[in-house]
Amino acid sequence: MNTLNNFSPNKIAIIADQNVLQLFPYYLDKLYADIPKFVLPVLPGEQNKNIDEVVYLWQNLQELHIDKKSLIINFGGGMVMDLGGFVASTYQRGIPFINIPTTLLSMIDAAIGGKNGINLNNVKNAVGTINLPQEVIINPQFLMTLPHQQLLNGFGEMLKYALIGNKTLWDELKALKSIHYQNIKKEWVNSCMEFKEKTVQKDLYDTGLRHILNFGHTIGHGIETWTLNKYGDARPCISAEKIPHGYAVALGMVAESYLSYCHGLLSQSAYEEIRTVILQNYNKILTPLSDDDISEIVKLCLFDKKNIDGRINITMLETIGKASPNHWVSKEECEEAIRNLIVEA
Amino acid sequence: MNTLNNFSPNKIAIIADQNVLQLFPYYLDKLYADIPKFVLPVLPGEQNKNIDEVVYLWQNLQELHIDKKSLIINFGGGMVMDLGGFVASTYQRGIPFINIPTTLLSMIDAAIGGKNGINLNNVKNAVGTINLPQEVIINPQFLMTLPHQQLLNGFGEMLKYALIGNKTLWDELKALKSIHYQNIKKEWVNSCMEFKEKTVQKDLYDTGLRHILNFGHTIGHGIETWTLNKYGDARPCISAEKIPHGYAVALGMVAESYLSYCHGLLSQSAYEEIRTVILQNYNKILTPLSDDDISEIVKLCLFDKKNIDGRINITMLETIGKASPNHWVSKEECEEAIRNLIVEA
Repeated sequence: MNTLNNFSPNKIAIIADQNVLQLFPYYLDKLYADIPKFVLPVLPGEQNKNIDEVVYLWQNLQELHIDKKSLIINFGGGMVMDLGGFVASTYQRGIPFINIPTTLLSMIDAAIGGKNGINLNNVKNAVGTINLPQEVIINPQFLMTLPHQQLLNGFGEMLKYALIGNKTLWDELKALKSIHYQNIKKEWVNSCMEFKEKTVQKDLYDTGLRHILNFGHTIGHGIETWTLNKYGDARPCISAEKIPHGYAVALGMVAESYLSYCHGLLSQSAYEEIRTVILQNYNKILTPLSDDDISEIVKLCLFDKKNIDGRINITMLETIGKASPNHWVSKEECEEAIRNLIVEA
Repeated sequence: MNTLNNFSPNKIAIIADQNVLQLFPYYLDKLYADIPKFVLPVLPGEQNKNIDEVVYLWQNLQELHIDKKSLIINFGGGMVMDLGGFVASTYQRGIPFINIPTTLLSMIDAAIGGKNGINLNNVKNAVGTINLPQEVIINPQFLMTLPHQQLLNGFGEMLKYALIGNKTLWDELKALKSIHYQNIKKEWVNSCMEFKEKTVQKDLYDTGLRHILNFGHTIGHGIETWTLNKYGDARPCISAEKIPHGYAVALGMVAESYLSYCHGLLSQSAYEEIRTVILQNYNKILTPLSDDDISEIVKLCLFDKKNIDGRINITMLETIGKASPNHWVSKEECEEAIRNLIVEA
C-alpha cells in the first residue's frame, strides 16, 4: 500500500508510541512494504512531549541519514502527532510526514490541522510550528483496544465539534446510552475531521476564525496543566486526580458555556442541557479546589497563546451548534466559572 | 521609527549579539521608542547556534510573557539571524520578527530568504524552519566597525552572487583593488539582496531552483564544518587554521568551478579567471591537508540537505554569471576538487 501519489521515499522513519507498537506489531509492515523502515519508539505521556525527546529523535534521524527524500510516519495518539509533527517540520527544515492516529481524540484533533508542538516549563504546546502532514490515515480498528477512559477522552472532543458546529450531531451524541467503541459511528469521526479541516483551511495560521476550535480549551488547558503540575502525567490510567485532555476540555466547555450564558449569548436552558449532558459522562473528576487552586488554574489559562496583554480570550456559544470566537473575559469571571463548575458538580 | 505598517506590538524582545550591542548601544532606542523593549543578549559564534541557546531564549520569552502581539527583533550577524529566526518561528508556533543584520554577509545572505536554523552534532543548520521575517532593515553604518576579515567574509558571498547571476557585478568586483567598507557600494548590496529575494520567491521551499544559491556551499560547508570540528569556533579572529563561512564558500566556489570545468560545462579560461580572482583574496587559508582530512571533509559534505541517497548535489556554473543547479558528483570527484584546490594554492 503506497499511500502517497508519486512519492516513493528512500527510507521511512516511524515515530511510534511504544505501547501502540506492542498492540499492533504488524500493522506497519503492510505500508510501503519494499522501503527500508526504521522504528523510533517513544514513551507516551505529556511529560515526554519535551525538547529532550525532540533532540533524541533529531539525532536518531541524523544517524539514520534520513533526508528530504525520506518519509516520517507518526504512529500513536495526540502526543506522538504533536511531537513527531514538530520533529518532521524542523529536521532539515522540514521533511514529508504522514500521521496515523490511533486514538479517537487524535483522529479528530491532533492528527489534522497542522499544529504541532511540545511543552516547555509545563506550558502546553509552548513551542511548535504549523505545518500540514502529507496525509492522515484513519483506521477504526485502533479504537478496539482503546481503554474506556481514552474513548471518553475523544468523545469529549466530539461533543465540542457538535456544540460549535453541528446541532444534529449533538442530538445524536446526547441520546447515546453508553460510550463504547462499537457505538462510535465512523460518520461521526468523519464529520468532526471534515469540520476541522474546513475550518483550518479558512484560517491555517490561526488568526481568528480557527479560534472556534478552541471552545472549552482556554479553561480546559488551565485545568489540564494544573493537574499535570500537581499530580504528574495523566497516563496510562485515569483517577479522580488526573485529568487528561478530553476530560479537561469537557469541564472547560461547561465553564465556557457558563460564561456564554453570563454574557447573554447562550440561553439558560441550552447552558443547562450542555452542563447535564457533559457532567453525566464527566462527573467526579475534580477534587474540591481551594480558592488558591482556582486562582492558580486561571493564572495558567493566561499562558494560552490566544491571550493578549493578560486578557483572557474565550470562544463562546451563541446556541448549541454555533460558536462565536474572540470574547474577552476577566480573571475574576474565569474564577467564578471554575468555582461554579466544582461547587455544583 | 515604526517600521511595520499597521502593527504596533505590545512588547519587543531583542535577540542581540552582545558584541554588537556594545558597539551600537543606542541604535535600538530609536526603533519603536514608545514600546517596552527587552534585550536578550547572545554570545556570537557558530558553537552557540545550538539547541541549548534556543531553549534559553524560549524560556526568557516565556518569562517576559511575549505573545503573538509582540515582536522579536534579531540584531547581529548571520548566527543571530539563524538562531533568532528559529526561535521566533517556533515560540508559540511563530510570532512576528524583523531582522537587522549588522555584517555584510548577513545583509546579503542569512537575513533574507526565510531559512533559519541551528547546528546539531556539528552538522550546520541540521534543524530549522523556512519562515520569512516581516521586514529586513539594512543600515550601511554597521559595516564601519566590521573587522576586515568579516568584510572579506561577506565579499566572498558577493562574489557568489556575481558568479551565479550577474556578470557585470563580477567585472566590477574583480576590478576592485582593495576590499574596504568604503569601496563596498550600496547598490552591490541591494543587487545581491534582490537576486536572493527574487530566487527565493520563485522557490520558497527549496525544491530545485533555489539550489543555485548554494553554489560553493556544498564543499564550502564541508570545509567549514571540518575546521569547526578540528579547531573550534572561527570567531572572533581569523587565523590560517580557522575558516569562517564566507571564506569556506570562497574555497568551495573554486572547487565547484573546477567540477564544472571537469564536467564540460565551464570553459577552462573562465575557471582559471575565477580561481585567480578568488585566491588572490582568499589564499593561505587552508593548511596542508592529508588524504584522511580530505576524505573527512567529503564525508561532512554528504550531510548537506540537498544530498539524496549518499550522492553529492552540486550547483555548477555554465559560464560566469549563469549557474546550473542539481548536478551529481561522486565522493572521489569531490576529493579530487579539494585536493586540487590545496596543492596548487
